Amino acid sequence: MQSTFRDDGAAALDWVASYLERVRDLPVLAQDEPGQIRAALPATPPDEPEPFANVLRDLDAVLMPGITHWQSPRYFAYFATTGSEPGILAELLIAGLNQVGILWRASPALQELEELTLDWLAQLLGLPSGWHGHIEDSASSGLVTALAAARAARPGARVVVCSEHTHSSTAKAARLLELELRTVPGDGQFRMRTDQLDLEDACAVVATIGTTSTASIDLVPEIAGRCRAEGVWLHVDAAYAGSAAVCPELRPLFAGWEDADSIGMNPHKWLFTPMDCSAFFCRRPDDLRRAFSLVPEYLRVHEDVVSLSEYAVPLGRRFRALKLWAVLRCHGRLGLQERIRDAIRLAELFEGWVSAEQGWELCAPRHFSLVCFRLEGADEANEELLQRVNASGEIFISHTRLHGRYVLRLAVGNARTTEDDVRLAWDVLRREAARLQIPGP
Amino acid sequence: MQSTFRDDGAAALDWVASYLERVRDLPVLAQDEPGQIRAALPATPPDEPEPFANVLRDLDAVLMPGITHWQSPRYFAYFATTGSEPGILAELLIAGLNQVGILWRASPALQELEELTLDWLAQLLGLPSGWHGHIEDSASSGLVTALAAARAARPGARVVVCSEHTHSSTAKAARLLELELRTVPGDGQFRMRTDQLDLEDACAVVATIGTTSTASIDLVPEIAGRCRAEGVWLHVDAAYAGSAAVCPELRPLFAGWEDADSIGMNPHKWLFTPMDCSAFFCRRPDDLRRAFSLVPEYLRVHEDVVSLSEYAVPLGRRFRALKLWAVLRCHGRLGLQERIRDAIRLAELFEGWVSAEQGWELCAPRHFSLVCFRLEGADEANEELLQRVNASGEIFISHTRLHGRYVLRLAVGNARTTEDDVRLAWDVLRREAARLQIPGP
Repeated sequence: MQSTFRDDGAAALDWVASYLERVRDLPVLAQDEPGQIRAALPATPPDEPEPFANVLRDLDAVLMPGITHWQSPRYFAYFATTGSEPGILAELLIAGLNQVGILWRASPALQELEELTLDWLAQLLGLPSGWHGHIEDSASSGLVTALAAARAARPGARVVVCSEHTHSSTAKAARLLELELRTVPGDGQFRMRTDQLDLEDACAVVATIGTTSTASIDLVPEIAGRCRAEGVWLHVDAAYAGSAAVCPELRPLFAGWEDADSIGMNPHKWLFTPMDCSAFFCRRPDDLRRAFSLVPEYLRVHEDVVSLSEYAVPLGRRFRALKLWAVLRCHGRLGLQERIRDAIRLAELFEGWVSAEQGWELCAPRHFSLVCFRLEGADEANEELLQRVNASGEIFISHTRLHGRYVLRLAVGNARTTEDDVRLAWDVLRREAARLQIPGP
Repeated sequence: MQSTFRDDGAAALDWVASYLERVRDLPVLAQDEPGQIRAALPATPPDEPEPFANVLRDLDAVLMPGITHWQSPRYFAYFATTGSEPGILAELLIAGLNQVGILWRASPALQELEELTLDWLAQLLGLPSGWHGHIEDSASSGLVTALAAARAARPGARVVVCSEHTHSSTAKAARLLELELRTVPGDGQFRMRTDQLDLEDACAVVATIGTTSTASIDLVPEIAGRCRAEGVWLHVDAAYAGSAAVCPELRPLFAGWEDADSIGMNPHKWLFTPMDCSAFFCRRPDDLRRAFSLVPEYLRVHEDVVSLSEYAVPLGRRFRALKLWAVLRCHGRLGLQERIRDAIRLAELFEGWVSAEQGWELCAPRHFSLVCFRLEGADEANEELLQRVNASGEIFISHTRLHGRYVLRLAVGNARTTEDDVRLAWDVLRREAARLQIPGP
């Protein structure tokens, strides 16, 4: 068994290493039709054991056409991510150890490393010391955690205030918790209009640093002041942009988040950590426990230690801290800063090219590493452009709608992206724009 | 970079292979004191990048004393689990590919393999065909999913009915969803007393096949009939025991679950899949979507495909299907059955030894691979016995309380556990019982 594991492991490792070497040249967006992957696989499970080599074989032969390459340096859609090398290898260790963190004693190393690593992360981001931190699977789950605590902390107040640019996970969490959503319009820079911020009956406000559509930045200091004055929980969603706070020169963009009650940011987005790793910070852990803590007899232990499961929904947790710890150590503060700065530099470059080119327009102030732009003229032309560009497989970008118009988004963030990759994106965009059936202006 | 990855990867792989080779001889339960691991690590993150070798070094030097060895064949606490070899290596592939399944197009292979693999799993378990299936991080999250759908399906009904032996995740989910919990007492066999089943104002009943304390089995056919007649959602929690349904001869124990509205079972418990992988099946996917679906503009696509994120809380999902697929293929139906049967055989053996030994008693009917037992006499003696046995590091067992008495639990389930390991557990228990300060009977 063990020699098989070593051999199979060497093959799997070689597969991943080769994948990372060749991923730049693979078609970024999967080009298959719905149902195609499933139809190519057996409809029933095997009776007899198969060798692991068959898994690798079918990964290449069947699954690869259905893989959108989030690891590609030419992936510019949604928010670009990176499963970096130390994070990948840490996942191997995590699975090998197979820790199940249902309570401290079940894995002291898991719990204490999670607490320590979140403290390290808070230091790297310039957050206040002493906050509670834990890892969630996604920012969506973190929203549920935050709003459940907010609801418990202010009984009777059933409104969650957010802006029209807030991520849909807030609406989803509010629905789950049966809270009413009050949506504040955005201003010309896609920020929550604070002159329309009505906190009556509100238990929580969700402000965003780095919105999904444009990476806009809400006026957090003002919002935090209002929340504090009225006893309303402030959650700051910095799922994407939060990673940028590792750079001191960018900290002014995060002004006010230190006055929030909770903050979510995703190392699995822009901090080079493989899915899934969403950091959740909270200044009021007792309110989390009030919302979530339940300790049945079969989990009672002698130690006076609060289990991380008392702060959120899941009882069992993976040893995700190990990968975040590996990523933070193997990049170091300086390495993280360098990659963040480089992504922003590349986005600035792209922004400059768009700005200087006739027939193209920028559609939102650029924040961090996201550029919102479009071909001047009809939405249809931009829609067709997006389709053509993504169908080429050379790059992958996504879209949004701003002021009623269809807008393209180019998000830099993969750690392997170079200036040549961004240059290629611009070349492909201009080439396909020139071939459009529906002319621009 | 790539050559470093190959070298670091070889070292990580060797670490895991060696770990699995030696894990039987490691002290099963971590023997450290609270705070010890954290105190041994630097309080601040490094500025400069460190080599991955440092992570492996500190894993051995600092973290290992804080690891409770869930991979040990001598782990008999809670429910024993296994991160099996194909599952471990699949996690390496998952991290290497770093898929982020926010919608179908973002990873067609992820979504279609998840749908296919859950269909395979349903076939292996003898569940009806055509149900919706997806993977959650934990059964706790699955409970939230089920109860949110149940609540939406029956507006105004705000009661969740469960038994006193139902896992605490039901109470946690009910609290999150602001549903009232109605707890039905158990009968002499720790089954929900159906003569006390009151469905007034109920939106859901949670029945259990394989409860946490004793692996008892609720009278699901009768409960399902009552739920069906009154339009109440039935969720069957088979988190631990569900895996046993791969054996046709055990299917009678699962009678009635085919009439449930939703079912949760954890491949990461007893189906040899590393954390995390909790399967969620539902006959009424439209009710899930009603509770969870929200599609903002930036996620709109041309394809008419329902994203898995529309059925539960998280938007982004890992490529967890790949590891479950690898586990099902590399074990095969027959391999899964063989391991399940062997775990049950070993539990039966242990049960027989306890039963035959003077001064010891069985405390619940044995179901599946869990034995509840105790030293006759005072609770204090059993508590001290548990402490001594676990402090020895030779095995790890857990406890519960039944009819007010402190009871020991021995759960077989790790795939590497042999008859010698179970024999060792019994020897350790008798040895430590003989050394007790507080005498038994």
